[in-house]
Amino acid sequence: MTINWDEIDAFSKELIYKAGEKIRQSFQEKLQIDTKSDANDLVTNMDKEIERFFVEEVKKFDPSHQLIGEEGFGDQLDTLNGIVWIVDPIDGTMNFVHQQRNFAVSVGIYHDGVGMLGYVYDVVLDELYHAYKGQGAYLNNKKLPLLKPVDIEQSILALNTLWVAPHESIPYEVFAPLVHKARGTRSYGSAALEMAYIAAGRLDGYITMRLSPWDIAGGKVLIEEVGGVVTDLYNEPHSLLEKSSFLAGNPSIHKVIFEQYIEGKLKKNSST
Amino acid sequence: MTINWDEIDAFSKELIYKAGEKIRQSFQEKLQIDTKSDANDLVTNMDKEIERFFVEEVKKFDPSHQLIGEEGFGDQLDTLNGIVWIVDPIDGTMNFVHQQRNFAVSVGIYHDGVGMLGYVYDVVLDELYHAYKGQGAYLNNKKLPLLKPVDIEQSILALNTLWVAPHESIPYEVFAPLVHKARGTRSYGSAALEMAYIAAGRLDGYITMRLSPWDIAGGKVLIEEVGGVVTDLYNEPHSLLEKSSFLAGNPSIHKVIFEQYIEGKLKKNSST
Repeated sequence: MTINWDEIDAFSKELIYKAGEKIRQSFQEKLQIDTKSDANDLVTNMDKEIERFFVEEVKKFDPSHQLIGEEGFGDQLDTLNGIVWIVDPIDGTMNFVHQQRNFAVSVGIYHDGVGMLGYVYDVVLDELYHAYKGQGAYLNNKKLPLLKPVDIEQSILALNTLWVAPHESIPYEVFAPLVHKARGTRSYGSAALEMAYIAAGRLDGYITMRLSPWDIAGGKVLIEEVGGVVTDLYNEPHSLLEKSSFLAGNPSIHKVIFEQYIEGKLKKNSST
Repeated sequence: MTINWDEIDAFSKELIYKAGEKIRQSFQEKLQIDTKSDANDLVTNMDKEIERFFVEEVKKFDPSHQLIGEEGFGDQLDTLNGIVWIVDPIDGTMNFVHQQRNFAVSVGIYHDGVGMLGYVYDVVLDELYHAYKGQGAYLNNKKLPLLKPVDIEQSILALNTLWVAPHESIPYEVFAPLVHKARGTRSYGSAALEMAYIAAGRLDGYITMRLSPWDIAGGKVLIEEVGGVVTDLYNEPHSLLEKSSFLAGNPSIHKVIFEQYIEGKLKKNSST
């Protein structure tokens, strides 16, 4: 059976825009805010509502499609066999709560573990970044150019202060030198947006110690379609079934960061 | 002689919107990019063109007004006597060059050293934050509410990785604990925007070791008009005639950061 990816692409865009509209409407209402694993891991009624919306609509569209999402309303999967949607209904929930901007809907659609379609939707700016395997990446349907080599001294890296500020449980010595070598660092608080910014050439690299599959799945397709590289901090591909560390970027920057700053200096599972 | 501040306010908004239009038009053209004091201190032809535009127009409007700006086309002042415009034509030049977003036009208008009018214009999002002494702060003419108290554990702070990553010339030990105490940190690469975000309640505090008067002048009026506090890292007011360190925020957060994290721990001029 041939899979009609154009149809899936059109359908997923429709869902994402509808989700964005629901989120924008919610700005008028009072949010219910809970915390999850720790006090800073926020979840709102909107994260849950949007994920349920995706689960229901995807299962109506094709019950053979599976879905894993941040809030756990989808399937519990051990493999990525078949067609799997990996969804973060609101990536950057802390920004959603505190700022009502700088968050995104992130969707990756994988086939037997291969990223076929990727979406990051900046709801407030109405900017949809999307990518279609083999056909490139786009911002609001305008094709994004392939990434060009950049020197580390002229790069802008996304890196949170958490990973460089001295703390016993964080290998800050590994990442701190990068901060003083790069032209600048930024931190926006949404992994999906930070990955979209790499795809758009606004950032050259992104490092973090801990991401979940739904943080990565959409942006990975975007970055790969402009020639960028997405791995964990050991230069290995992500499984997308468990949490992991993260290194993405322009290929020249990814190589320099891994080979000159990280390789051999991080103990596996030391702090993730 | 009575000064007509309403007239000055209307005139400055007109200039700022015209400057924004010139900057947006420049996105179609090729930028000339130079470096200043170091390789990461970028300046473009647009920074210079916009500052010259402000100097010319302000002098035509009223030759008694003085202007100091980042690019040095204005006046060289030893005092803030009279009416002084303090202008950063493009605050966040690195973002302007690399991202074509996340930068702002920043203007503060002072009378005998007192901030009377403050503006931060996010050119790409067409968001004008403005404040009028005693009349409040506004985002696109919608009044911003006064800041409410926030616990440090629930705060989002703007803080660049530079100030917490170990380095011999930076008192990173002072700031690093804040990173692990706050709910989150962000870094956007434009002091003016980070100050506007504080005024809008999207960030609760902002710390940096080095700012110039033109980075501070507009945002200071904004923050003070919503009840926030703007000082250097020694809890002293800025002179606005020289570079200095910077601590701004919600009053509850400013107090906690200064008293619990900084007071007595920084040597004056140790690294600024």
